[in-house]
Amino acid sequence: MTTPPRPPEFDLDAAQSGLGDMGADDFRAHGHAVVDWIADYLEGVGERPVLAQVRPGQVRDGLPTSPPADPEPFADAMRDLDQVLLPGITHWNHPAFHAYFAITGSGPGILGEALAAAMNVNGMLWRTSPSATELEELVVDWLRQMLGLDTGFHGIITDSASMSTLLALAAARERTGLDVRQRGLAGRADVPLLRIYTSEHAHSSVEKAAITLGLGRDSVRTIATDDAYRMRVDALGEAIREDGRFGYRPLAIVPTVGTTSTTSIDPVTAIADLRDDLEEELGHPVWLHVDGAYGGMAAIVPELRHVLDGVDRADSFVTNPHKWLFTPIDCSTLFVREPEWLTRAFSLVPEYLVTDDRGVTDFMDWGVQLGRRFRSLKLWLVIRYFGTDGLAARIREHLAQARRVVDWVEQHADLELAAPAPFSTVCFRAVPTWFEPGGPGEEPDDAISDLNRAWLARINRTGDAYLSHTELDGRYVLRLALGNLRTTDERLDATLAVLDRELDALRRSRVPTEPSARA
Amino acid sequence: MTTPPRPPEFDLDAAQSGLGDMGADDFRAHGHAVVDWIADYLEGVGERPVLAQVRPGQVRDGLPTSPPADPEPFADAMRDLDQVLLPGITHWNHPAFHAYFAITGSGPGILGEALAAAMNVNGMLWRTSPSATELEELVVDWLRQMLGLDTGFHGIITDSASMSTLLALAAARERTGLDVRQRGLAGRADVPLLRIYTSEHAHSSVEKAAITLGLGRDSVRTIATDDAYRMRVDALGEAIREDGRFGYRPLAIVPTVGTTSTTSIDPVTAIADLRDDLEEELGHPVWLHVDGAYGGMAAIVPELRHVLDGVDRADSFVTNPHKWLFTPIDCSTLFVREPEWLTRAFSLVPEYLVTDDRGVTDFMDWGVQLGRRFRSLKLWLVIRYFGTDGLAARIREHLAQARRVVDWVEQHADLELAAPAPFSTVCFRAVPTWFEPGGPGEEPDDAISDLNRAWLARINRTGDAYLSHTELDGRYVLRLALGNLRTTDERLDATLAVLDRELDALRRSRVPTEPSARA
Repeated sequence: MTTPPRPPEFDLDAAQSGLGDMGADDFRAHGHAVVDWIADYLEGVGERPVLAQVRPGQVRDGLPTSPPADPEPFADAMRDLDQVLLPGITHWNHPAFHAYFAITGSGPGILGEALAAAMNVNGMLWRTSPSATELEELVVDWLRQMLGLDTGFHGIITDSASMSTLLALAAARERTGLDVRQRGLAGRADVPLLRIYTSEHAHSSVEKAAITLGLGRDSVRTIATDDAYRMRVDALGEAIREDGRFGYRPLAIVPTVGTTSTTSIDPVTAIADLRDDLEEELGHPVWLHVDGAYGGMAAIVPELRHVLDGVDRADSFVTNPHKWLFTPIDCSTLFVREPEWLTRAFSLVPEYLVTDDRGVTDFMDWGVQLGRRFRSLKLWLVIRYFGTDGLAARIREHLAQARRVVDWVEQHADLELAAPAPFSTVCFRAVPTWFEPGGPGEEPDDAISDLNRAWLARINRTGDAYLSHTELDGRYVLRLALGNLRTTDERLDATLAVLDRELDALRRSRVPTEPSARA
Repeated sequence: MTTPPRPPEFDLDAAQSGLGDMGADDFRAHGHAVVDWIADYLEGVGERPVLAQVRPGQVRDGLPTSPPADPEPFADAMRDLDQVLLPGITHWNHPAFHAYFAITGSGPGILGEALAAAMNVNGMLWRTSPSATELEELVVDWLRQMLGLDTGFHGIITDSASMSTLLALAAARERTGLDVRQRGLAGRADVPLLRIYTSEHAHSSVEKAAITLGLGRDSVRTIATDDAYRMRVDALGEAIREDGRFGYRPLAIVPTVGTTSTTSIDPVTAIADLRDDLEEELGHPVWLHVDGAYGGMAAIVPELRHVLDGVDRADSFVTNPHKWLFTPIDCSTLFVREPEWLTRAFSLVPEYLVTDDRGVTDFMDWGVQLGRRFRSLKLWLVIRYFGTDGLAARIREHLAQARRVVDWVEQHADLELAAPAPFSTVCFRAVPTWFEPGGPGEEPDDAISDLNRAWLARINRTGDAYLSHTELDGRYVLRLALGNLRTTDERLDATLAVLDRELDALRRSRVPTEPSARA
């Protein structure tokens, strides 16, 4: 290819004369300062209070209510970042962040995000950056290989599991053949009530997708779980049969690999068997979507590949690199067997987006959003920097740390495990020997829940650790999630000591000041 | 507040011993290299081919099909970025990127993105980073002030106008009182067919939202436009009355300030008048959502504030800082008068997300996605770095550049303006004096469209400029959008010279080699 003649070189000086972007010299100076700030931040984040210790409105009160008319020095904003914003940050990159799911915005991921922002491509069409589309195709296929999924899956990166699950259910809705895309759901005698089956421990995103898609919360039937919080396949079968008698049509079944509360693993293979029987019986397809947003990623550890048993029989599967693959949010990967159901649901190509490119993927056709960030870049950098063995070793480490927490709970006289911990999240509660529940009329279990609520509040107020909670069979329990690359065993032990200290302080606060008063 | 005792300091060396994140020294080294790469990239981007000149599959073929088992040096990935990915990048930050809407990922915005990735907060709840929530509230209020909107608007940042418009229409759906959230749209005798009215020049995101929300494409009725491509209010009124006779209920009207093809401005005030009459007549509300994703931002220029006339009477309004406010994608701002319709549509709070924080905003309740990036940080840095006067001056400059293009078209013997250009995007086509359409049976206008199609293909193949096209009244026309901070007047003139050169080359390619053959 001969190089065509180029217009005169861009004159950066002109761009700096009051208009244009930040100049190159300034970008270098501020950029290097930002890199040093980030390095210092990541090095020292473990010394900050992990849960922000500010009152509502405090951050906003520290900043001007109106924007500046004149340019401000970049350093002024960095000063406010330090003085006003940082105290109001809950540090997700902190080694004692154990709430929700513990995640990591890792070094290579952060740099990938900066590079993506610099190129600022919108990968809506192949031609609007072939590298964005092709790297996305490549890197999700890398991930497919890492997870041990078969070659029949095609992947796309979305912003969140909420969106991935919505897209999967929209594809299922389209596959009904009811032409919901064109005709909608309302006012039609030919549209049956559709049902989505998921466990009572499924993530709220399933219900939110049902709301968004116009199916309504009533379309989601939650299925009872067993004593390990796994969807009961017998209950699922019964529910579908019962619904059938009332004219409901099963649209989709959504098992979870790693539920949010306890990280329980629904029996995907048995559910897939039931789905197959159902399809034969009903003569129409039932979409199987597996939510492995957090737990699915464990399958990159070869000896844990079995957690995805049965997923090869699913129509779609979601797992989030921004949860347990050290990629800054947002980055969710949706794998589908038949992308044409996504494109048939969503593709709209107005004239201004028509191209003559053939044999390419235009990812705008696969979903809701037209604008698409270059998210594959950070994921590609993370995988290359750590290597698949390195990534697996890190996940293994988090699993070992979870074992460490389980051991601590089990050896603790005042604690009990609240659920099995198949991944890196541990649910437990205090049932202290010294605790005697009991105002008049108080249920013992409610009193224990109140005690645990008070314990968690104490822990989080210290700023030394941040845990969250859930409710299991009416009991309030604490959740401790591992998954941050900065959490060393030593730091974890220190965190467990904080938990002990606060439980002891709670005990002391409850003992009457006059020892004799209770004796 | 007394500082509580802290656990032992985090041991970074331990984190580097095979597990953990990229070490601090490595982060500094790679980070500084990345900053220099970005500075060089931005300085030299204007010398690269703006539209990627690669064949489908070329990028992917240049990269390993499987992920590496072992860690790779960061520099190896940077080498592949240069050698394999960059040739496949269509450079949205290029001074001759004039396709779609020309945007800028500016210096402060890029650094804001890096900082956000480093903190990696998920602002789903106030407590999961009070600064993320409060800065978002603050910065969208700054933007509200800059746009001259009244204090009755509350803002939220979403990823894209596609999502902002979907949320607005979901809020409208909820406000019908039909309890679609719970009961869905299907199989209900009490749900009428709902209609959304928008112009034939509206963005495809309106239709995509209708598909997603289960309303279907049929629910979108497109209204004819006048000779300046603005929605005809008389036609809107007639359409609604006609629909009423068939039992349709008007759900929403979506005018656009700055349509995608021509940047035409629908008459929002007259539409709001009609909406008010309609509400009185029907006795139920009709949602007015204004799509100003691109053009709305012009209102930060004081003398252009009138482009948002009538928007204060809307229920919601979207404008995108990632389009014309120099913020890296993604960043869209949705303003709503009554956020409770969003929360009533979307709020779902499972036990594991329950908090005891009172009087705070939990933005997860306002939309589809639970996970929320810290997008306000980059927008805040952009506004502070440039100042509102500086931002207005830059938009003014783009408007002046558009005038320059209009003048060029109007003074050009072979070109004609295809539509008014109220903002920074110009539609035009070649109608050359030398062109004689006409094989047998060929329509003259089709031949002219083919000529313009060929002209655009030639321009984009050069790599010297990237323009896109649209269709207006059956005519294929070129679109040239201004909005990149690197586009100087000099560079723009050079681009116009490229257009001239390619039109001339097209003329020469069409003249028979034997001059006498046609004489």
